Amino acid sequence: MNFIGAAIAVAGAAIGASLGNGKVISTTIEAIARQPELQSKLQTLMFIGVGLIEAVPIMAVVIAFLLIFQ
Amino acid sequence: MNFIGAAIAVAGAAIGASLGNGKVISTTIEAIARQPELQSKLQTLMFIGVGLIEAVPIMAVVIAFLLIFQ
Amino acid sequence: MNFIGAAIAVAGAAIGASLGNGKVISTTIEAIARQPELQSKLQTLMFIGVGLIEAVPIMAVVIAFLLIFQ
Amino acid sequence: MNFIGAAIAVAGAAIGASLGNGKVISTTIEAIARQPELQSKLQTLMFIGVGLIEAVPIMAVVIAFLLIFQ
Amino acid sequence: MNFIGAAIAVAGAAIGASLGNGKVISTTIEAIARQPELQSKLQTLMFIGVGLIEAVPIMAVVIAFLLIFQ
Amino acid sequence: MNFIGAAIAVAGAAIGASLGNGKVISTTIEAIARQPELQSKLQTLMFIGVGLIEAVPIMAVVIAFLLIFQ
Amino acid sequence: MNFIGAAIAVAGAAIGASLGNGKVISTTIEAIARQPELQSKLQTLMFIGVGLIEAVPIMAVVIAFLLIFQ
Amino acid sequence: MNFIGAAIAVAGAAIGASLGNGKVISTTIEAIARQPELQSKLQTLMFIGVGLIEAVPIMAVVIAFLLIFQ
Amino acid sequence: MNFIGAAIAVAGAAIGASLGNGKVISTTIEAIARQPELQSKLQTLMFIGVGLIEAVPIMAVVIAFLLIFQ
Amino acid sequence: MNFIGAAIAVAGAAIGASLGNGKVISTTIEAIARQPELQSKLQTLMFIGVGLIEAVPIMAVVIAFLLIFQ
Amino acid sequence: MNFIGAAIAVAGAAIGASLGNGKVISTTIEAIARQPELQSKLQTLMFIGVGLIEAVPIMAVVIAFLLIFQ
Amino acid sequence: MNFIGAAIAVAGAAIGASLGNGKVISTTIEAIARQPELQSKLQTLMFIGVGLIEAVPIMAVVIAFLLIFQ
Amino acid sequence: MNFIGAAIAVAGAAIGASLGNGKVISTTIEAIARQPELQSKLQTLMFIGVGLIEAVPIMAVVIAFLLIFQ
Amino acid sequence: MNFIGAAIAVAGAAIGASLGNGKVISTTIEAIARQPELQSKLQTLMFIGVGLIEAVPIMAVVIAFLLIFQ
Repeated sequence: MNFIGAAIAVAGAAIGASLGNGKVISTTIEAIARQPELQSKLQTLMFIGVGLIEAVPIMAVVIAFLLIFQ
Repeated sequence: MNFIGAAIAVAGAAIGASLGNGKVISTTIEAIARQPELQSKLQTLMFIGVGLIEAVPIMAVVIAFLLIFQ
Repeated sequence: MNFIGAAIAVAGAAIGASLGNGKVISTTIEAIARQPELQSKLQTLMFIGVGLIEAVPIMAVVIAFLLIFQ
Repeated sequence: MNFIGAAIAVAGAAIGASLGNGKVISTTIEAIARQPELQSKLQTLMFIGVGLIEAVPIMAVVIAFLLIFQ
Repeated sequence: MNFIGAAIAVAGAAIGASLGNGKVISTTIEAIARQPELQSKLQTLMFIGVGLIEAVPIMAVVIAFLLIFQ
Repeated sequence: MNFIGAAIAVAGAAIGASLGNGKVISTTIEAIARQPELQSKLQTLMFIGVGLIEAVPIMAVVIAFLLIFQ
Repeated sequence: MNFIGAAIAVAGAAIGASLGNGKVISTTIEAIARQPELQSKLQTLMFIGVGLIEAVPIMAVVIAFLLIFQ
Repeated sequence: MNFIGAAIAVAGAAIGASLGNGKVISTTIEAIARQPELQSKLQTLMFIGVGLIEAVPIMAVVIAFLLIFQ
Repeated sequence: MNFIGAAIAVAGAAIGASLGNGKVISTTIEAIARQPELQSKLQTLMFIGVGLIEAVPIMAVVIAFLLIFQ
Repeated sequence: MNFIGAAIAVAGAAIGASLGNGKVISTTIEAIARQPELQSKLQTLMFIGVGLIEAVPIMAVVIAFLLIFQ
Repeated sequence: MNFIGAAIAVAGAAIGASLGNGKVISTTIEAIARQPELQSKLQTLMFIGVGLIEAVPIMAVVIAFLLIFQ
Repeated sequence: MNFIGAAIAVAGAAIGASLGNGKVISTTIEAIARQPELQSKLQTLMFIGVGLIEAVPIMAVVIAFLLIFQ
Repeated sequence: MNFIGAAIAVAGAAIGASLGNGKVISTTIEAIARQPELQSKLQTLMFIGVGLIEAVPIMAVVIAFLLIFQ
Repeated sequence: MNFIGAAIAVAGAAIGASLGNGKVISTTIEAIARQPELQSKLQTLMFIGVGLIEAVPIMAVVIAFLLIFQ
């Protein structure tokens, strides 16, 4: 039963993180394509944003590992 | 049964937080790309916003840990 | 059975609060990026709005804790 | 069985109230950003609106507490 | 079994009333922001509209109370 | 079993009536905000429209009461 | 089992009729707001339209009553 | 079991017919509001269209009656 | 079991045919409202189109009758 | 069990074919309304397109008959 | 059990192929309506495209026949 | 049980491949209709694209055959 | 049970990869149709992109084969 | 039971990663098609973005392998 739990947790994490990251990164690429002189600023912001977004999904992955090896 | 519960809680948290954060961060990147002179203001607001958004999902993660280790 | 209940409650709270907050905060950031002279007014309004939105999800989190420790 | 009931009720209340409030508050912020001289009027209307929206979800929360402590 | 019924009824009422009210109130705020001289007329109409919308959800809440205390 | 039936009936009635009424009333408010001289005509039409929309949901509420007290 | 059937039938009727009527009535209100001189024509058409739309949902309500009292 | 079948058939008929009719009738009202001199032509077409749309849902209602009284 | 089958078949037929017909007929009404001189051509095409669309749903209705009377 | 199978197959066929045909036919009507001199060409193409679209749903209907009479 | 399998396979094939074909054919009709001199080229491309789209659904139909007659 | 598996696999393959191919082919037809001098280039690209898209669905079909004949 | 697993894995892979590839390839075709002089660059990028997208679905196919032959 | 878990995990990973990657890569292709002189910058960013997006799905694939071989 905890195997199904790990699968649900990690599938939700993968879908959520992919969609959230995909939105942020594609916005960044569009913005840099319009204003290449802001690349360093926007790129830094993008890395911070990806880090903030992946905080909760990484916890979901951790919980999935806990559910498997428990 | 509590393993499935932990998985549902953390999956919901991951999907919700990723979509909410993705919206806020991509809006911030677009705004900074248009007005680079407002970067510090908007960046501060972004961090506050991400913190406010992640308040409830972090509680969901806490509840998931409670459900696993109980 | 109450563990599943706590998970459903807190997952709904996380999804709802994240989407609602994400909409309000990104609207605020866009508005401040257009009119930086209104920052204090809009920021105050944003905090009030986030507080009002999180009222019901926080109750859902409280109910989830009640369901776990009962 | 009433624990699941409480969870469904409060999850629906959280999702509904968050989306409804998020729409009203973000509309208010946009309107104030366009016309700052109307702030007091619109803010009053926003509080009334949030109160009207949260009437039914608060009843759902009350019903959830009833289902738990019964 | 009637506890689940009460939960379904009140959750549907909360979601429906929140979305319907949110639409009406945000429309009113936008309209008043464009034409502040019509505030009293539109505000009156808004209260009537919210009352008409909440008629059926309030009946759903009443039915939920009936299902609990029966 | 008839308690669940009453809940499904009244939840569908609440969601349907709220969305339908919300659409009609917000359209009316927008129209009056554009042409205040037509208020009486449009308001009358709005009341007729809300009455026509709520005809079937009120029957659903009646059926729900029948299912409870039978 | 026929109680659940009555609930499904009347819930579908309420949702369908509310959405269909809401669309027709809001279209009529918009049209009258643009051309008030056509009010009688469009209003007549609206009543015919609402009658035609509610034909099938009323049959669903009749079937629901049949399922209850049979 | 045939009661549930009748309910599914008539609920699908009500939802389908309401949405299809609502689209046709609201299109007709918009068209007549723009060109009142075409009213008779478009109105005739509308009645034909509503008749053609309701052909299959009426059969679904007939099948529902067959399922009840069989 | 074949009663449920008949219900599913006829409900799918009703929903599909109503939406497809509704789209074609409303397109025809819009086109005739713009170019009344093409009415006979477009009307003929509309009847052909409705006939082609209803071919498969009518077969579904036939199959539903087969499932009932078998 | 094969009755349910026949119902699922024919319902999917009806929904798919109706939506696909509805799109093609309404596109054709719009195109002919704009360029009546191309009617024969576009009409021929429409019949070919409807034939190509209905190839797979007709097979689904055939399979449904096979499932019933087997 | 294989009858249900055949139904799912052929229903998916019908829905997928109808929507895909409907999109391609309606695009072709629009394109030919704009540029009638390209008819032969676009028509050839349309037949190739329909053939490529229906490759996988035809295999699904073949698998459905295999599941029935096995 | 493996018959249901084959059906799910091939239905997913049919829906996915049809929608993906439909998008690519209709884009190609639109592009060729605008620039007929690029036909050979775009057509080649279209065949490559269809081949790349159908790689995974063909594997799904292969797996479905494996599940049937195993 | 592992046959159902293989089917779910490969169906998800087929749907995901088809939609992702379809988006990338149609974007490439549109871009080349606008700027034919960039064909080699964009085509290379398209092949890289398709390769990156199909990385995870191919792993899903591999897992499906593992689940079948284990 | 862990086979179903592996399938759910890898299917979620495939759908999420494909959609997220598809969005980023198609944005990059559009941006390069508009500004070919930024190709190296945007391409680098695209590879970083794809890497960041695939971080969580790859973990899901790893968890799926763990669930199979455990």
